[in-house]
Amino acid sequence: MKAAIVTIGDEILIGQIVDTNSGFMAKTLDKIGIEITEMLSISDNKKHILDTFANLQNKVDLVLITGGLGPTKDDITKKTFCDYFEDELVLDAEVLQHVKSIIEGLHQRPITPMNRDQALVPSKCTILKNPNGTAPGMWMKKENTVFVSLPGVPYEMKDILENEIVPKIIKEYKRPFIIHQTVMTYGQGESLIAEKIEDWENKLPKFIKLAYLPSPGRVRLRLSARGTIEELLKAVLAEQIMQLTALIGDIIVGYDDGDPIEVVLGRMLTQQNKTVATAESCTGGKIAQVLSSIPGSSIYFKGSVVSYAKEIKVNVLKVSEETIEKCSVVSKEVAQEMAVNVQQIMKTDYAIAVTGNAGPTKDATNEEVGIVFIALATPETVIVEKFNFGQPREKVIDRTVNKSFELLLKEILKNVQ
Amino acid sequence: MKAAIVTIGDEILIGQIVDTNSGFMAKTLDKIGIEITEMLSISDNKKHILDTFANLQNKVDLVLITGGLGPTKDDITKKTFCDYFEDELVLDAEVLQHVKSIIEGLHQRPITPMNRDQALVPSKCTILKNPNGTAPGMWMKKENTVFVSLPGVPYEMKDILENEIVPKIIKEYKRPFIIHQTVMTYGQGESLIAEKIEDWENKLPKFIKLAYLPSPGRVRLRLSARGTIEELLKAVLAEQIMQLTALIGDIIVGYDDGDPIEVVLGRMLTQQNKTVATAESCTGGKIAQVLSSIPGSSIYFKGSVVSYAKEIKVNVLKVSEETIEKCSVVSKEVAQEMAVNVQQIMKTDYAIAVTGNAGPTKDATNEEVGIVFIALATPETVIVEKFNFGQPREKVIDRTVNKSFELLLKEILKNVQ
Repeated sequence: MKAAIVTIGDEILIGQIVDTNSGFMAKTLDKIGIEITEMLSISDNKKHILDTFANLQNKVDLVLITGGLGPTKDDITKKTFCDYFEDELVLDAEVLQHVKSIIEGLHQRPITPMNRDQALVPSKCTILKNPNGTAPGMWMKKENTVFVSLPGVPYEMKDILENEIVPKIIKEYKRPFIIHQTVMTYGQGESLIAEKIEDWENKLPKFIKLAYLPSPGRVRLRLSARGTIEELLKAVLAEQIMQLTALIGDIIVGYDDGDPIEVVLGRMLTQQNKTVATAESCTGGKIAQVLSSIPGSSIYFKGSVVSYAKEIKVNVLKVSEETIEKCSVVSKEVAQEMAVNVQQIMKTDYAIAVTGNAGPTKDATNEEVGIVFIALATPETVIVEKFNFGQPREKVIDRTVNKSFELLLKEILKNVQ
Repeated sequence: MKAAIVTIGDEILIGQIVDTNSGFMAKTLDKIGIEITEMLSISDNKKHILDTFANLQNKVDLVLITGGLGPTKDDITKKTFCDYFEDELVLDAEVLQHVKSIIEGLHQRPITPMNRDQALVPSKCTILKNPNGTAPGMWMKKENTVFVSLPGVPYEMKDILENEIVPKIIKEYKRPFIIHQTVMTYGQGESLIAEKIEDWENKLPKFIKLAYLPSPGRVRLRLSARGTIEELLKAVLAEQIMQLTALIGDIIVGYDDGDPIEVVLGRMLTQQNKTVATAESCTGGKIAQVLSSIPGSSIYFKGSVVSYAKEIKVNVLKVSEETIEKCSVVSKEVAQEMAVNVQQIMKTDYAIAVTGNAGPTKDATNEEVGIVFIALATPETVIVEKFNFGQPREKVIDRTVNKSFELLLKEILKNVQ
């Protein structure tokens, strides 16, 4: 079963908004064995939309469309969708009732004609309920292809996808299994790894595909297997992962189904009943934010002090003024004091501290742009490392966040060996 | 001048990675007057890539391609790119020198055959320098269309785009001007706004396009004007914005060229020479992280205390235990103490504090999932508001961040009236 994802909206084409819907939809469909062959973003233009639909007709089994379902003039998806099927819009009583309950209940005012129009749907479509908004999802089939139109508001789309579309697909379509297994490595570049595993890679069975996913400081290797017997796929994948581990076990930091490192960290901290806190300068709270973005993180994440200004380092984190004057705010010594002090203040097992200069200018530090010190306080000791993450600002911050998670993961992995 | 953006990589199609490159490229091209007609993500598959190129041939003037330029077997873009132009790969001495300097200099090891292959480029292409990585950008023209292949690593792509491609386009192509002006409103839904401004919208000149960009709690109205005389476009846009303000001035919180609210806040805090700090519970540091993601934010952002655990609220933020026991951690009173205390601790003009329950479970709070209290301490007073941001977790966090910025912006705007 093949699918395409189409996002409609000028705001994406002018770069005003980053499209996160497509990624979520792809991940969700992939889990139920549907292969995404392409993703497209097109403008709110009738001809573009119709051409795109025609181009995908019978090329894929399913087309998921988001965006352009709002009540205003620039939203033309519903009308165009209806035109494509040579259908007409009719008022749906149940949707109207739902629109009324949202507007009159939540917003406490009578509905306007524009709100009322949200209840117009193509006469032949199957309505997909949208509990979080006024625009319903619409499911229509033409020849061999199903077209589904969804609102672009992420949480509205997600709810309809998970509670209406996925169950419907599982019930109505036979699909193969797609299983991914990702091996996380760090410390070596992709070309070195590729040379070490070349023979193994060449002998991989045809139904298994290998991908290299490099990011600053680490490479993830993703094995994807596709077939009809789930147990067989799992067994073959497990065997291949064992062979791979025999070759590069020294640089592997974890195995997973594609979970980000912060999810892996959260799982391990929870299992080991350990806690963590952070003291952040150049990352401005991003380490804390990423850690706490995981549901259930309150079990292991206690808090953070973001000490952007020097006086916060002194007054809140109790870093000695002498150390700062002698060594500068961006130094091994300050990072170390930040880590140890926040560990004490927040009474945690581990503490991450970072101080550095993310740029764009040198500011009041002695170090050049890109220099970051990361300190990790553990129950036994404190480790500090110095890095040069280059430029620009965004890269320095992201590499600092990643590297600090790697240092922590490496420490935590020691407890299970 | 029309352009398409093509992203190559299975990791995007299975939802393992969210494509942020396309948005950045779109924004950059839009600024120099290039219209993006479509964005596509396709798999690392030779036939798909060739079909996509053929389909875009002569339909647009420029095709920007990212991804698939790594040294490993799954990276097939360069070979396919070369095939499309019926060209052959040749070793470029200058690129080889650059690859050597990166591998031998930064990684401190001799180059491998795979590294060496990074210096192979189509014989007829124009090489675009990539100072941050080993894969160069490649510029090739066929009939009326220029195809440019770029590495997928965001900071490598950005550098080549800004320092090689944009200057080349500005020099070689005549382009119209595209100017966007965005009006930020809050407190009313898009359908109500649309009804208020209907007459004005219907009379807009043909070369001006209006878009509604709703997000939780606020609607941005974007006016886009396209034409050949920049000054004329600016004058007409200014006139239209004035008319719009006369109609809905009461709900407008700002005007900008599409900048996010945190950028507007940063600009105003800098102008007014004011500082801000945050005390965050359910947002886990995201308010601090977004504030500090802006270059130059160290001028106005002093720091944050992320008090995820109750004891951090007591020990670091000095919220009284009595208040917590009497009112619960998620309460008006605790939010208020957090804001006033962090304002004092960090000696700032403004302080934002949030406490709430982002879910997924009720945890130890009295309040249901989605309830958030936001407190804003100003030089004169402290304001606390209660919100119900519903579910899921991600939405609660994002709405809290947005709403806290709105409250702060509203306060700061008072100083300029």
